[in-house]
Amino acid sequence: MSQRKYAIIGTGAIGGYYGARLQQAGFDVHFLVKSDYPLVKNQGLKIDSCDGDFTLPTVNAYDDPSLIPPCDVVVVALKATQNQILPNILPSILKKDGTVLLLQNGLGAEEKIASIIPNSIIGGLCFICSNKVGPGHIRHLDYGSIKMAQYCPNSGSAGITNELKAISLDFQQAGLEVNLSQDLLLTRWEKLAWNIPFNGLSALLEATTAEIMENPETRSLAEALAKEVVEGAKASDRALSQEFISNLMARTAKMKPYHTSMKLDRDQKRPLEVEAIFGNPLRVAKEKGIALPRIETLYQQLKFIDTKNR
Amino acid sequence: MSQRKYAIIGTGAIGGYYGARLQQAGFDVHFLVKSDYPLVKNQGLKIDSCDGDFTLPTVNAYDDPSLIPPCDVVVVALKATQNQILPNILPSILKKDGTVLLLQNGLGAEEKIASIIPNSIIGGLCFICSNKVGPGHIRHLDYGSIKMAQYCPNSGSAGITNELKAISLDFQQAGLEVNLSQDLLLTRWEKLAWNIPFNGLSALLEATTAEIMENPETRSLAEALAKEVVEGAKASDRALSQEFISNLMARTAKMKPYHTSMKLDRDQKRPLEVEAIFGNPLRVAKEKGIALPRIETLYQQLKFIDTKNR
Repeated sequence: MSQRKYAIIGTGAIGGYYGARLQQAGFDVHFLVKSDYPLVKNQGLKIDSCDGDFTLPTVNAYDDPSLIPPCDVVVVALKATQNQILPNILPSILKKDGTVLLLQNGLGAEEKIASIIPNSIIGGLCFICSNKVGPGHIRHLDYGSIKMAQYCPNSGSAGITNELKAISLDFQQAGLEVNLSQDLLLTRWEKLAWNIPFNGLSALLEATTAEIMENPETRSLAEALAKEVVEGAKASDRALSQEFISNLMARTAKMKPYHTSMKLDRDQKRPLEVEAIFGNPLRVAKEKGIALPRIETLYQQLKFIDTKNR
Repeated sequence: MSQRKYAIIGTGAIGGYYGARLQQAGFDVHFLVKSDYPLVKNQGLKIDSCDGDFTLPTVNAYDDPSLIPPCDVVVVALKATQNQILPNILPSILKKDGTVLLLQNGLGAEEKIASIIPNSIIGGLCFICSNKVGPGHIRHLDYGSIKMAQYCPNSGSAGITNELKAISLDFQQAGLEVNLSQDLLLTRWEKLAWNIPFNGLSALLEATTAEIMENPETRSLAEALAKEVVEGAKASDRALSQEFISNLMARTAKMKPYHTSMKLDRDQKRPLEVEAIFGNPLRVAKEKGIALPRIETLYQQLKFIDTKNR
């Protein structure tokens, strides 16, 4: 067992699940908890998982980030819409040679974190169906793997670094599947090829992934949106294959009916991650003169929903 | 006063209003009434109008189209989704030299009517805000003009015909503003430049025209959709100007907040006119190799809503 100390910033569907898995495996984990703090402090975390339910009756829970001890790995599992709190949090929680592991969808957040702290940053894309169903109560429905890659400024590829190997080993020791990528930006665009059609349409149409796939019109639209993501990736000099998109569609067709995080955010009148998942990729593409009309249409519709929903 | 006898097929927001205006002016009008028949037969029609309220205590109401006497002008004011009843109705109601006046949005309905009867067909595009608010009860909120043009097979321009002049004079005698167009297909594409963005977005986002115009993202999307209609019109060899689109946006910004007919159809779980307003223009454009990605996106989203809404 490594001596690495973990902080989990954002104890929701993602941070709550992965943090609980790390603690379950014996790691020293410290959770920043917002609204659920009193309950989590007293009763810990409850995880209903397709791999077996478990409870952690006692966790290190904090509502004040300044009380969290300096950690080797700070896992940022906030909604992208909450990243504005990071400048006040990261410098005090992160050890001098510590690493940030950012578990978030979308584009552009590593650049902002790199402007706050000089430390190593790893991006993690979670392939998981999980929801927070109540205070300190996470339901893990399906999947669970993370694809991790080292962040490299200037859109380069950083390869497989030592801290990437070390942190992925910790997650594997916690029973989690981790895949390593040499190229964070490619991995982010690949994930967008799912998030843009399925988070977007499920939030807009208030539908599950299964409903989107069963209707021939929205299935065709989802694929057209994914293909526009392939065009967008060219703005970052990244190539996604047609085969990648076909596999993505086939895998989604086989998924259990799923309410995406953006759909749940709409249901619960929380801010939608529209800028991270749609706005930033659109801006990157636009800078290179690449038009993504379907994605832009969905972005504009979701901006309307997001404004009206507050 | 002309001797022309009028039949109104579909006594809703459009047919109820214009038919009542014709009867109010002394014309012999016969109304086909579906679900509201008992009430309309007994109590007539009630019109709340921004130009002054009025009531017609007695109207010629029919629930059986075979009882309607042969008419000089058959005004088809059904939803486009109900046009399948026309083959059973038109031949018996229409005098041998009678004319069909089709008050419907979208593309493609005249061709279908021409396949049922050999008579003259006039298309009318209504610029009116009116809703049916109860059985036999129409609320006319704003505007009210009709742009009429003679249908001509093979996408030609028929010019201003005698029957077009005669029928428009009847409507003008009823106090209605009528504008004549030499070119029905151009007029239909011009109307689509409003219906596609505003009916579509208002139904999808459950919003009024004012909400769409007030949000910068949806106002920009509405204009982008209208500009795609300009591209689509080229498939019919029709040219809409940039100035036309600017005026359309400026006029819509000044309109009172309005729930479009498609928004109300969604609210009331009625079939949406998606094929007439979106599907047919998209097919016409596709045949000429013209891609309309934003309109197609909205079409696919509305098809999903329409299917789920039944």
